[in-house]
Amino acid sequence: MEIIGNVLYGQSGGPTSVINSSAFGLIEEAYKLGIKKVYAARYGIDGIINDDLIDLSIFSENELKELKTIPGASFGSVRYKLPEYEKDCSPFEEILKTFKKYNIRYFFYNGGNDSMDTCYKIDRFLKTINYQCYVIGIPKTIDNDLVEIDHTPGYGSAAKYVKDTVEEIVSDNLSYRNAKVNIIEIMGRSAGWLAASSALAHLSGLGPDLIYLPETTFYIDDFIKNVKNIYDKNKRINIVVSEGIKDKNNNFISASQKQDIFGHNNLGGVGQYLLGYVEEKLHLSGRAIELSIPQRAAIHDISKVDQKEAILCGRYAIRKAINGTSGVMISMKRSSNDRYKISYVTSSLEKVANGVKLVPSFMIDEKNHQMTKEFFTYICPIVGAENKVHLKINSKILKK
Amino acid sequence: MEIIGNVLYGQSGGPTSVINSSAFGLIEEAYKLGIKKVYAARYGIDGIINDDLIDLSIFSENELKELKTIPGASFGSVRYKLPEYEKDCSPFEEILKTFKKYNIRYFFYNGGNDSMDTCYKIDRFLKTINYQCYVIGIPKTIDNDLVEIDHTPGYGSAAKYVKDTVEEIVSDNLSYRNAKVNIIEIMGRSAGWLAASSALAHLSGLGPDLIYLPETTFYIDDFIKNVKNIYDKNKRINIVVSEGIKDKNNNFISASQKQDIFGHNNLGGVGQYLLGYVEEKLHLSGRAIELSIPQRAAIHDISKVDQKEAILCGRYAIRKAINGTSGVMISMKRSSNDRYKISYVTSSLEKVANGVKLVPSFMIDEKNHQMTKEFFTYICPIVGAENKVHLKINSKILKK
Repeated sequence: MEIIGNVLYGQSGGPTSVINSSAFGLIEEAYKLGIKKVYAARYGIDGIINDDLIDLSIFSENELKELKTIPGASFGSVRYKLPEYEKDCSPFEEILKTFKKYNIRYFFYNGGNDSMDTCYKIDRFLKTINYQCYVIGIPKTIDNDLVEIDHTPGYGSAAKYVKDTVEEIVSDNLSYRNAKVNIIEIMGRSAGWLAASSALAHLSGLGPDLIYLPETTFYIDDFIKNVKNIYDKNKRINIVVSEGIKDKNNNFISASQKQDIFGHNNLGGVGQYLLGYVEEKLHLSGRAIELSIPQRAAIHDISKVDQKEAILCGRYAIRKAINGTSGVMISMKRSSNDRYKISYVTSSLEKVANGVKLVPSFMIDEKNHQMTKEFFTYICPIVGAENKVHLKINSKILKK
Repeated sequence: MEIIGNVLYGQSGGPTSVINSSAFGLIEEAYKLGIKKVYAARYGIDGIINDDLIDLSIFSENELKELKTIPGASFGSVRYKLPEYEKDCSPFEEILKTFKKYNIRYFFYNGGNDSMDTCYKIDRFLKTINYQCYVIGIPKTIDNDLVEIDHTPGYGSAAKYVKDTVEEIVSDNLSYRNAKVNIIEIMGRSAGWLAASSALAHLSGLGPDLIYLPETTFYIDDFIKNVKNIYDKNKRINIVVSEGIKDKNNNFISASQKQDIFGHNNLGGVGQYLLGYVEEKLHLSGRAIELSIPQRAAIHDISKVDQKEAILCGRYAIRKAINGTSGVMISMKRSSNDRYKISYVTSSLEKVANGVKLVPSFMIDEKNHQMTKEFFTYICPIVGAENKVHLKINSKILKK
């Protein structure tokens, strides 16, 4: 098809290690396909509304390649929820002004479920007013909680970092005869995919003893009982908790229940909170370890598979748009598990917007707070096999 | 010289990413040199006192090579301070019993300053009673605070992890228009070497705005003033604090001044504590990020130079012992800075035991809470140049 105008790309939501790789894939391919101008919005939708775009021709080819090595969201991200057009059209009018000024006919928004909602609303608005523009969402989130896609770009790298870090923490914990209670807190408010990825550390014999996900109700008494049993037996314990675990009334188990020196709520997280319980009830000392920002930023430990897929999502997006597709998110479909193979397809933005994909129960071994082999089959190829640690020697020495 | 008996190796103090690499260097070389039996103590001095040794011949050559890939202290570590022999000789008698039982004539203890004290005491005791045994300390600590050595094995890898992680956190922080106050807490109770290594992130344009070390007195009012100035200007700030910073009365600035829900002290660290102050005084929200255990365990991000030097320290130790040296720690001397070159020498254990090497004032740019170029000259070759991030593109976009 004929090229009818310029490209605009924006980033939205929490950064991942490979969101800039998607940007790279899209931009490089856009120039290759003959697009004259490729713009990026600074700070996502905020930059579009406020006419704050960058013409990417100021960068050399080599500088654009550097995107693959930069953590964070290089063009600036934003958390912004567009209203319904019918209720408040003012931000849409500003968006249109910017689109017309730069002759934007291909628009790409790179983000998670909220961002797909934004993308969907913009697509609907532009269709309503008959402004010809092809709108495509590019998926991204470490949480892996988008529906209609096998897994999200960003998840594999975050999962690899979590796996490696949990292995290292568990190995460190083995170094002392009477070791500590380690409670490792991992991101994921709604879905436990990232906390679940810590189970991969079992492959090298250094997995966590207990994994708590938001998908199963959290009972504090059971938790204390489990900790006691394992500690009594092993004289050490490593626990992974998702920040999003909830009690039977659907309230977050969290530090918002405690106050800091200034009387503020919300200091520290669920790990710190649970550690307080363990210290009080079992008189065991320990350490709450929050993996914090590095989970979504640790580009030094990316999954190569994840990076490649992120680039391909970007490339595929521009090709689909030029071929006349709009109102979709780029999606990945797994053709086979025996030999991992991904095909790139599209899903309707409407279906994706604001949906949340939880870890299905067949991947959770509820009784043991561990993951089933179905989960391993699902996640192993995404995370890749780099940096394998072999620990036969360790188990011969310290686990005797 | 003639080989007069068997080898015993032990680990002590906090693990590092490369302590097992030193073990590998020593063990491999010991077999090569014709030692019949190489034993490792489980959990350091504790294993020696309690006759808990492992005969390493149960491992294949390949299994021993795996040591280079295992985080933590694979043979088990301990924190144990031997008494003066003159005051309490009972642990020394137990040690001697074990040495005699296994015909130990070469003893190696791998640790930091406290461990060198242990090593020194054992050497003195064995000399006093005329038991012929060559005793050598192998240095190790992420804190880099041993005297009489250019830098310690373990420091380069921890520093690399700190550099990479700070870069990533700063880059993540750039992703939002009005970003947060990040306070990054880094290990080091007495000396600020590891916190100082965060300055390396400046090489890619992603360094911290302020670095606070234990070597300079911490004034909370100055801190708040500095944070306000930088935040007002940049609308974001990244601060690195060493866990060991102290006020003018030499008291630790720390969370022991606050209590948790159970009335316990010591929940959370100095970063969390300072964040509370910033929130209270400046009404800014933020995040305290404690690098925690991964600093000393992140083998997935080691410095190759550090690993190589750790192996060489182990190899050199066994060679020196067989040649009749005792009562020393293996040390590294930098021959030249223009072309980084290390020679392996020995230092008297007596000098090293319990000494603490602080960051010298000529490496600290006090006014700016940054490090001087002398510090960069010192640290760059230790950390190595792997995983360089080039960020021209980032600064063109988000720092405009």
